[in-house]
Amino acid sequence: MALNIPDSDLPRLVIVGAGFAGLELANRLPIKEFQVVILDRHNYHQFQPLFYQVAMAGLEPSSIAFPIRKMFQRQKNVHIRPVDVLELKPVEKRLVTEEGEIYYDHLIVATGARTNYYGNDKMREKALPLKSISEALHLRNEILSDLEKAVMIEDYNERQKYIDIVVVGGGPTGVEVAGAMAEMRRYVIPKDYVELDEDEIDIYLVQAGERLLYGMSDHAAKKAKEFLEDLGVKVLLNSQVVDYDGETLSMHNGEKLLSRKVIWCAGVKAEAPAGLPDDCMHRSGRVEVDRYCQVKGLRDVYAIGDVALMREDEFPDGHPQVAQAAIQHARYLAKSFKKKLKDEEVEPFAYNDKGSMATIGRNKAVVDLPFYKFSGWLAWVAWLIVHLFALIGVKNKVFVFINWLWNYLTYDQSLRLIIRPEKRREKNG
Amino acid sequence: MALNIPDSDLPRLVIVGAGFAGLELANRLPIKEFQVVILDRHNYHQFQPLFYQVAMAGLEPSSIAFPIRKMFQRQKNVHIRPVDVLELKPVEKRLVTEEGEIYYDHLIVATGARTNYYGNDKMREKALPLKSISEALHLRNEILSDLEKAVMIEDYNERQKYIDIVVVGGGPTGVEVAGAMAEMRRYVIPKDYVELDEDEIDIYLVQAGERLLYGMSDHAAKKAKEFLEDLGVKVLLNSQVVDYDGETLSMHNGEKLLSRKVIWCAGVKAEAPAGLPDDCMHRSGRVEVDRYCQVKGLRDVYAIGDVALMREDEFPDGHPQVAQAAIQHARYLAKSFKKKLKDEEVEPFAYNDKGSMATIGRNKAVVDLPFYKFSGWLAWVAWLIVHLFALIGVKNKVFVFINWLWNYLTYDQSLRLIIRPEKRREKNG
Repeated sequence: MALNIPDSDLPRLVIVGAGFAGLELANRLPIKEFQVVILDRHNYHQFQPLFYQVAMAGLEPSSIAFPIRKMFQRQKNVHIRPVDVLELKPVEKRLVTEEGEIYYDHLIVATGARTNYYGNDKMREKALPLKSISEALHLRNEILSDLEKAVMIEDYNERQKYIDIVVVGGGPTGVEVAGAMAEMRRYVIPKDYVELDEDEIDIYLVQAGERLLYGMSDHAAKKAKEFLEDLGVKVLLNSQVVDYDGETLSMHNGEKLLSRKVIWCAGVKAEAPAGLPDDCMHRSGRVEVDRYCQVKGLRDVYAIGDVALMREDEFPDGHPQVAQAAIQHARYLAKSFKKKLKDEEVEPFAYNDKGSMATIGRNKAVVDLPFYKFSGWLAWVAWLIVHLFALIGVKNKVFVFINWLWNYLTYDQSLRLIIRPEKRREKNG
Repeated sequence: MALNIPDSDLPRLVIVGAGFAGLELANRLPIKEFQVVILDRHNYHQFQPLFYQVAMAGLEPSSIAFPIRKMFQRQKNVHIRPVDVLELKPVEKRLVTEEGEIYYDHLIVATGARTNYYGNDKMREKALPLKSISEALHLRNEILSDLEKAVMIEDYNERQKYIDIVVVGGGPTGVEVAGAMAEMRRYVIPKDYVELDEDEIDIYLVQAGERLLYGMSDHAAKKAKEFLEDLGVKVLLNSQVVDYDGETLSMHNGEKLLSRKVIWCAGVKAEAPAGLPDDCMHRSGRVEVDRYCQVKGLRDVYAIGDVALMREDEFPDGHPQVAQAAIQHARYLAKSFKKKLKDEEVEPFAYNDKGSMATIGRNKAVVDLPFYKFSGWLAWVAWLIVHLFALIGVKNKVFVFINWLWNYLTYDQSLRLIIRPEKRREKNG
């Protein structure tokens, strides 16, 4: 096999990564002017903000994923290849992929970020990440099958390991996971698992810093903690996780928690392809770009989204690694390609921070707008609307909406299926 | 771990298998009169007639599966355990499961049937079965990722292996799979894979016998073949498959087909737990029962559904292994438990054959009613309605209906995601 991209008279623009940044760019590009090649290890775009709802059995993967090919149907100059990119050779203007090399005229690195374990190998091995749809499905299976096992365990202490859950990381994902787990405990367990006592289930949210939701307002942090505690989540601040053997989680202060499920939402690390010059690589893994999204020191190579580190006066450490910034980078870059084609002047990028939000549960969310901060029911509705509209695809919007409505009315996320690959059985015919 | 079923004053009724038969029985039983234990290796009921639509990316697993616990919410005397049953010890009235033993007062064996490879180990190893949701998902992933690979293959002959598909078995499943594949070729490939030539894709339906749809009328068989050929499926009758090495499929007449995907829909074999006396076991794997669903020679042990072999004058080889028979067995048995509780007399079971149906594609289906046979659009609508109503759960009905409507209007099954377990990457933080 080879990438098998046909020759073309158009300049070749290669996009690595079909997340918010890569896909938005492809969508907005003057697409007829380029031969566009999209490389992503998956054949679909995944909507990260709702991974946790897949993990909590509230949504199906297909509702928050969109096949990349569907977005470029019948486009003869768009070539999509589900391959891993191994290395960049900037001098030759070539990319090495698992299926062979490819030349580019323009390269856009939009490879995003992955879970950051901060070098803790024990965590990487034993904790459960939540940075992809398949990780979300795996987490769902673990939660459900541990509940099934818990029903079959008589011993109190042994059972605790199966039902208690620890969420590490007090950012939006950690807060959302802990809140959703607490709602499952309140609304689903008493109905589905009458044999379990839901009061025996402990949900911990462990945060290294002294408050939740860094990057949001104090009001949001305070409210989020209040909401979580209302739902019965034990919020442990100033608690650093040091070790985990799959059952015992140890903190820096000697405290220990027993649980088979430690969900790791404590941070991300940008993931750039190998081969970028050392002097444009930041230790966070991000790639330094100028205000035109150009990777420093390289021609015709751009980085956008979570993987890009663009410094502005207001953002000396780069923009926040959120969908909003990725989309703004992408729109900006698409526009600058258009302008360059028309020989117009390109202005430097400026980030427009529209605010941020996090949801904790039914009628419970926090929203920071630049000039107004609010929380509660209205914030929750705002969160739903923003996320519904951000989803790609009409069908996804429809299905997520119906699911949310259903779950809201029935107090029940109903997708509690433990689906795993079948072992081939010896007994078969 | 142990099964951990509490003691109870009620007689214990154990149901093995939560397919159509087992679940229908549990639903209709005078449930307050028993301690009901449901054992199934999955935590959900799966709707077999639509597996092929999951495989063809038209439906999500959750739309055709239903969590067993959801059906018995808040029922304190119903105990659900997702375990494999290993052996029956009829003398002691005990069952051995992977999580320990359990005593029963009444045992209902409703373990259904699995893929039958007729002893052909090569087939078991290399062909793709379609008898569970996870097998359907696996097949979906194979079809899609082979298409992705095909795009990257220049060599014509090599590419054929990735795009051609062979379906073995001319029963309803085989016919439905072949028809759905042909529709994907016609409506989806030209949009999603402009780089492939859909005319290069061959779809074969291989049937050992001289006609399709044994068990249905000649009219249905003829029409189904016509419909399939209209869709461009190559129907090979009188063709027995003898060998397959993962790429080359050999027939008894020396003919060979090249394909990486041979979908095996050629038959089922009943799957009864070990430990049943030899003289009640038929060579098809089915368990011989009398007209009261009682396993011959055993007290308090019943078999219903695909695993049961009940002979009536009209059905000397037992009832057809279809949902209809399973549901009728279950309803009958539930009613006989009720009658026995009231000391009423129990009549022997009599099967009421309501007819059968198969669908080939848009507006193309065949229906055999006892006194009327028809095909085409009306048959197709009938098929949709019957299957929609047979689904368990209001939400499933709603979601399947919306999906069907969507697919019908857009000519597009849109769930083309290749979701596989993530390899843990060395590069992570």
